[in-house]
Amino acid sequence: MSIWPVLDDAALPERSAAVIADIKATRNTDFINNFWRVLANDPALLERTWGSLKEVMGPGEIDPLTKEMLYVAVSIVNGCEYCIRSHTAAARAKGMSEGQLGELLAIVGMASETNRLATGLQVPVDTAFLPASCEDDGRA
Amino acid sequence: MSIWPVLDDAALPERSAAVIADIKATRNTDFINNFWRVLANDPALLERTWGSLKEVMGPGEIDPLTKEMLYVAVSIVNGCEYCIRSHTAAARAKGMSEGQLGELLAIVGMASETNRLATGLQVPVDTAFLPASCEDDGRA
Amino acid sequence: MSIWPVLDDAALPERSAAVIADIKATRNTDFINNFWRVLANDPALLERTWGSLKEVMGPGEIDPLTKEMLYVAVSIVNGCEYCIRSHTAAARAKGMSEGQLGELLAIVGMASETNRLATGLQVPVDTAFLPASCEDDGRA
Amino acid sequence: MSIWPVLDDAALPERSAAVIADIKATRNTDFINNFWRVLANDPALLERTWGSLKEVMGPGEIDPLTKEMLYVAVSIVNGCEYCIRSHTAAARAKGMSEGQLGELLAIVGMASETNRLATGLQVPVDTAFLPASCEDDGRA
Amino acid sequence: MSIWPVLDDAALPERSAAVIADIKATRNTDFINNFWRVLANDPALLERTWGSLKEVMGPGEIDPLTKEMLYVAVSIVNGCEYCIRSHTAAARAKGMSEGQLGELLAIVGMASETNRLATGLQVPVDTAFLPASCEDDGRA
Amino acid sequence: MSIWPVLDDAALPERSAAVIADIKATRNTDFINNFWRVLANDPALLERTWGSLKEVMGPGEIDPLTKEMLYVAVSIVNGCEYCIRSHTAAARAKGMSEGQLGELLAIVGMASETNRLATGLQVPVDTAFLPASCEDDGRA
Repeated sequence: MSIWPVLDDAALPERSAAVIADIKATRNTDFINNFWRVLANDPALLERTWGSLKEVMGPGEIDPLTKEMLYVAVSIVNGCEYCIRSHTAAARAKGMSEGQLGELLAIVGMASETNRLATGLQVPVDTAFLPASCEDDGRA
Repeated sequence: MSIWPVLDDAALPERSAAVIADIKATRNTDFINNFWRVLANDPALLERTWGSLKEVMGPGEIDPLTKEMLYVAVSIVNGCEYCIRSHTAAARAKGMSEGQLGELLAIVGMASETNRLATGLQVPVDTAFLPASCEDDGRA
Repeated sequence: MSIWPVLDDAALPERSAAVIADIKATRNTDFINNFWRVLANDPALLERTWGSLKEVMGPGEIDPLTKEMLYVAVSIVNGCEYCIRSHTAAARAKGMSEGQLGELLAIVGMASETNRLATGLQVPVDTAFLPASCEDDGRA
Repeated sequence: MSIWPVLDDAALPERSAAVIADIKATRNTDFINNFWRVLANDPALLERTWGSLKEVMGPGEIDPLTKEMLYVAVSIVNGCEYCIRSHTAAARAKGMSEGQLGELLAIVGMASETNRLATGLQVPVDTAFLPASCEDDGRA
Repeated sequence: MSIWPVLDDAALPERSAAVIADIKATRNTDFINNFWRVLANDPALLERTWGSLKEVMGPGEIDPLTKEMLYVAVSIVNGCEYCIRSHTAAARAKGMSEGQLGELLAIVGMASETNRLATGLQVPVDTAFLPASCEDDGRA
Repeated sequence: MSIWPVLDDAALPERSAAVIADIKATRNTDFINNFWRVLANDPALLERTWGSLKEVMGPGEIDPLTKEMLYVAVSIVNGCEYCIRSHTAAARAKGMSEGQLGELLAIVGMASETNRLATGLQVPVDTAFLPASCEDDGRA
């Protein structure tokens, strides 16, 4: 029921087939979730999106599980069911315990609550939280 | 310029003074940021919010730095400047490197991008991401 | 610093001047806040927006103070500083006490928290909350 | 399964029937989508909403297809499935190609990504992007 | 199909059973909606969330029906279907008429519209809406 | 006052300097707005973001002005002041009239209003707006 059809391997445009093959190789699995099979209808969009995701979620200074948990948190706030389910599954596959999921949810809820309070009250930012000088704001 | 005044210690209602004292003791510092000094105008709101935050951000299965980074990510998506600045400061105080901040930002941006793509295309959730049985949905 | 200038009375296009005059008459005051003075740059937009607001916020089954408090709540969730400040001022002018403001904020925060929990956990809607029949969904 | 029933023609209140007739005449079709049939339960809400939509989406300086694409973009960011599906259908009916839909999605995703980066880093607005004078801010 | 199962009474962890019992007693009903039965998988989260909700939605300066209508308004803006349906049901149970629901919806829609206009035009806040002095901003 | 400093040309890391040079060449101007000068603190983030933007906003099936207007609309809904101001400036530079800006704002506001109504009433999607078959949903 997506806006574009979910393409199976036989229906992939050639340029998209190459990207899908790279996803399979990178993730070491033949399972390709619907998100990529729908994006595959637009090879340029698929190519750029996968290229970006591969770089952003690849090795870095933040460990892989924390990266997935950040992805889940953002997806909850943006209200994207597909993303919540797929990245919660990915986080569990990377070792997230149910206790950690509970804490993640508590933080997402709590942060949303205090975000609304700070916004609703228009709390001024403490000077302690601002850079030492304002000369760096490019307006000088 | 907040909706309620930023109360200094001398102006705190008695019930709020006790909460502020607990924040100082818990955080082992005399610095109390504006958020709490504004909430202090409503002792019940201050008491409940601090009680909740203390529990949610306290020791658990997720390490303290990851908790702060999740808080920053949620605050960016909710668009709360105060919360972005205060929790970025807190995350740095807990050891977040600038490289980690860059990765956090990249994930928040990337997740927001793919969230919009999944929503805009109405991608159907893969059965692999759903619980084994639907009998648990309470509708039976 | 708005995108369009804040027009004073002398600078109003004729069609906008008539709308501004109606706002003054309806509200029984000469004070016109910036929102209307900026919209006045586009008479059609000003006319339609004021016409709508006048109808929506006018007499009805919900009392005027509750209407303003709903407006404040929505503005906090949408993160619009201008709207938070102008409608909080309007609610106070209609009798909102500081205690009521505190409760309003508590509800906005609390609802944002549980909204995230329900979304993050993808809680299924109870049949008790759905209409008795699904035959009304126009798909039959 | 909507909160209010989807009313067929026979069930329309008289005042709503007149609006529905105008929608049919304006759009030159007998097909009335569920949104209007649900709003029809509240004649005042239906009347005002349709009057506004007819004016906003009618002839102007922006061409009809671009107007529909803007509507789709906003609906994706607000996360409204109904609106995404109905306005994507409307945009296609007005000539949107699948290539244009792909580009629209890419922009919505990309803008959401850079919006989060600019917000997360609290990038200061360049003076070049501000009006020449700040005297127009109504605070002088 | 939630992320965590909907627990029936027999499956509740002991600590969660006590909370569920308090919800039944407080609401004077044996019906417990899915939200609580899902949260029950994490007793600490359930306990804190119910404790908070009980306090926030309990007796205060805002009457119970207005509190529920504020909850519905926030849930619509946050796009949480579960919350919209459960709190609309609760508001009806507390006496909300269909006419009041129509007005609530009109305000939520109208406020979202003007919120976007004020944000899109970056309308400066009128000095009349700011506190008399800026000395209360904690930056002095 | 950004989280990271606004780097002038002399302060750019080597890898970022190359990206900045490409932005200057692509846009045929020496003016580099703060967004890029702040991202320049993280060369990988700058490189990927600019590479993506260059591709997404480059020549395609949607004309350049419409692309900028879509960017503005998304930025308003996401509530990013920096992005609203920079992309409104860009749209004007590409020929957007003030009349078109007024219509864009009207659509963003109106769409947000009807998005809230459709969500608040949980209007079911018309079968006419769904793909002909549901067999494409990948769940079969």
